[in-house]
Amino acid sequence: MAVKLNFNSALVDLSMGAGGKAMNRLIDQLMRKAFANEYLAQNEDQAILPKLNGKLAFTTDSFVVSPYFFPGGDIGSLAVYGTVNDLCMSGAKALYISVGFILEEGLPLKDLKKIVYSMADAAKTAGVKIVTGDTKVVEKGKGDGIFINTSGVGVIDQNASVSHQKVQGGDKIIINGNIAEHGVAVMSKRANLDFMTDVVSDAIALNGLVEHLLSQNLNIKMMRDPTRGGIAATLNEWADKYHCSIVVDEATLPISQEVESACELLGLDPLFIANEGKLLIVCSNEDSQSILAHLRKHPLGGNAQIIAEISDTKTQGVQMKTAFGGMRRVDWLTGEQLPRIC
Amino acid sequence: MAVKLNFNSALVDLSMGAGGKAMNRLIDQLMRKAFANEYLAQNEDQAILPKLNGKLAFTTDSFVVSPYFFPGGDIGSLAVYGTVNDLCMSGAKALYISVGFILEEGLPLKDLKKIVYSMADAAKTAGVKIVTGDTKVVEKGKGDGIFINTSGVGVIDQNASVSHQKVQGGDKIIINGNIAEHGVAVMSKRANLDFMTDVVSDAIALNGLVEHLLSQNLNIKMMRDPTRGGIAATLNEWADKYHCSIVVDEATLPISQEVESACELLGLDPLFIANEGKLLIVCSNEDSQSILAHLRKHPLGGNAQIIAEISDTKTQGVQMKTAFGGMRRVDWLTGEQLPRIC
Repeated sequence: MAVKLNFNSALVDLSMGAGGKAMNRLIDQLMRKAFANEYLAQNEDQAILPKLNGKLAFTTDSFVVSPYFFPGGDIGSLAVYGTVNDLCMSGAKALYISVGFILEEGLPLKDLKKIVYSMADAAKTAGVKIVTGDTKVVEKGKGDGIFINTSGVGVIDQNASVSHQKVQGGDKIIINGNIAEHGVAVMSKRANLDFMTDVVSDAIALNGLVEHLLSQNLNIKMMRDPTRGGIAATLNEWADKYHCSIVVDEATLPISQEVESACELLGLDPLFIANEGKLLIVCSNEDSQSILAHLRKHPLGGNAQIIAEISDTKTQGVQMKTAFGGMRRVDWLTGEQLPRIC
Repeated sequence: MAVKLNFNSALVDLSMGAGGKAMNRLIDQLMRKAFANEYLAQNEDQAILPKLNGKLAFTTDSFVVSPYFFPGGDIGSLAVYGTVNDLCMSGAKALYISVGFILEEGLPLKDLKKIVYSMADAAKTAGVKIVTGDTKVVEKGKGDGIFINTSGVGVIDQNASVSHQKVQGGDKIIINGNIAEHGVAVMSKRANLDFMTDVVSDAIALNGLVEHLLSQNLNIKMMRDPTRGGIAATLNEWADKYHCSIVVDEATLPISQEVESACELLGLDPLFIANEGKLLIVCSNEDSQSILAHLRKHPLGGNAQIIAEISDTKTQGVQMKTAFGGMRRVDWLTGEQLPRIC
C-alpha cells in the first residue's frame, strides 16, 4: 500500500528528486494525476507521439518568476502559456509540452500542488497536452522555491501560416491590447504594493487568437509576443534583423490608467515591461484595417491598436513620436529593470 | 560596434537574463557561435524544423549536478548526452535539442563558456543539433552556478525499432558495461576524494550504439538507461510496470575495482548509483547471446554482461543472488543517497 503524501503540510525534500521511491510517489500522486493523458501514461523517460503532418516547431523557456504566485496567475500557468505562445507566433499549432521542475528543498507541497494544477488548467485552456516531464530537487538555499522549464512542439499547417513576406516601408505594427500588465502585476506584488493596485497579469494562451486570424487568410508578415524586455525589445530586434526603422506613435499605445499609475510609482517605463498575453503583428498598410477589425472582434483583442509603422528612412532603430509631438529614441533595455519577471 | 564580453574575468550579472541588450550580447557572442547551425540561425523564439517521417519522440531533463565540472565531464556534456540517451532508449533517432540555462549571478563567464562549448562538442559527438534556447539569470544565493534543461525531439523509424514484445519468464537483461561510474566520479569530486581515485564519469551518447543494434534486426524488447537511482531503480520500475520478478546475479555485475573501492570508502551501494553511459536491454533468452556478441564488438559495449533474468515466479520485485549463494531483496532507493548527481 503506497504511502499517501500530505499535501497540506509536508515539504519538498531531497529524496523527492533522487530517482527512488519518494520521487515516484510524488510524480504518481501529483503530476500524473493532474496532467493525465494517454502519452504521459506511457510512463517512460520519453513520450512517443503521432506522426505530424507538416514542419515542426520546437521551443523552450525556463521560468524563474519571483514571487511564484502573483495577481492574475502563477509560475505554472505562465510556463504553459509562455511556451504555447512562442510556438504559435511562428504560425504553428501548439500540441505538446514538456515540463522540468527544479524544486528547492522546503517548498511546501501545497504550493507545488497548486502550481501543478494551475499548469494542468492552463494546458486545458490552451488545448495542449503535457506529455513528458522531469523533477529535480536542490538543497535549501541553492534554488528559490520553484523553477520550471517548459519546452513545446507544434506543427505548421502550410495552408494557415504566416507569410514571411518582406518587411517594407509603410508596413504597420499592431498590438492586440493593453501593454505592461504582466510585469506591473509581478512587480507590484514583489514590492508589496499589490494592495494599492488592481493590475493583474495578462498571461494567457494566444494560440486560439492566432489560429482564428490565420484561418481568415489574413496576410500576416510576422508575429512576436513581446515578453521580457517589453515591446521595446521586440521592436529593436526587428529593426536589427530587418535593417529597418520603426516609429512608434505614443498616442496610440493602449495602456490602462492603473498600469500608468503603477509605472510612475515603481519608476518603470511600460515600453520595457513584459507582456504575457500580447502579440505584435507586422502587416502591410492595406491589410492593417482588416486585421485590426478581426482582432477587435476576438475576446483577446478588444483593445487592439496600430501602434507603429515601418519607416522608409534608412536609419536603423526604433523611435517614438511622443504625445508632445517630439521624437525620441527607444533603445533596448540596457540594465536590469525587471529581473525574474518570467 | 558591439561591446565584446570578457570571457576571462567577467561574471554573469542579472542584466544578462533581462531580455535586453546584455542578454542578446551574451547569446550572440557565446551560444550562437558555439551551437551554430541553420535552425538556430533563424534567430526566433522557436525553431522551425523539417517534417519528420515517423512518430515523434519527445523528452526533457533538467540538470543540477554539483559540482558542475567533474572527472570525465561537466553539466553541459551531461545535459546533451542525458537527453540524447532518453530519446534513443525508445528506439528513436535523436535529432534536435533545446537548451534552457538558469544561471546564478556571479557565475564566471569562463565557466559558462567552457560548459557551452562542452555542449557543442557533445552535440557534435551525438550527431544532434541544438536548435533553440533560453537564458535566465537569478540573484546570487537563489541558484547554484548553473542549472541546464535540455529537451529533445527524435523520430522513430518503424523499420529499426524496439519490438515491445511481452516480457516473460526466462527473458534476459543485459548491460553494456561497468556500473556506477558516473555517480562515483561526481561523489568523489564532491567529497574531495578525486585525488584518491581515477574513476571518471561514463557519460556518453548511446545513440550510435543503439542505432547499430537496431540496424542488425536484433529483437530488443525494451531498453532503458539506468541513471538516477541506478540499476536498482530501473529494475524495480520494470518489475512494477510488468508485474514480474527480476533476479540479478551479483557475480555477473560488471564493476571496476576502483569503483568498488570508492563505493566502500564513500559508503555507497553501486546498485543505486547513477550511470550516464549505460543501457539495460530486455530480450528473450534465445536472442541474448547474439545481442551480447554485437554489444561486445562495439566500443561502448566491450564489457557487456547478462546480469539478470525475468523469473517465472509470481512474486513481484527485484532480488539479487549474492556472491555467497544467498538471495536478498533489492528495493528502490528510499532516502537521498545521492542528491544532485545529474
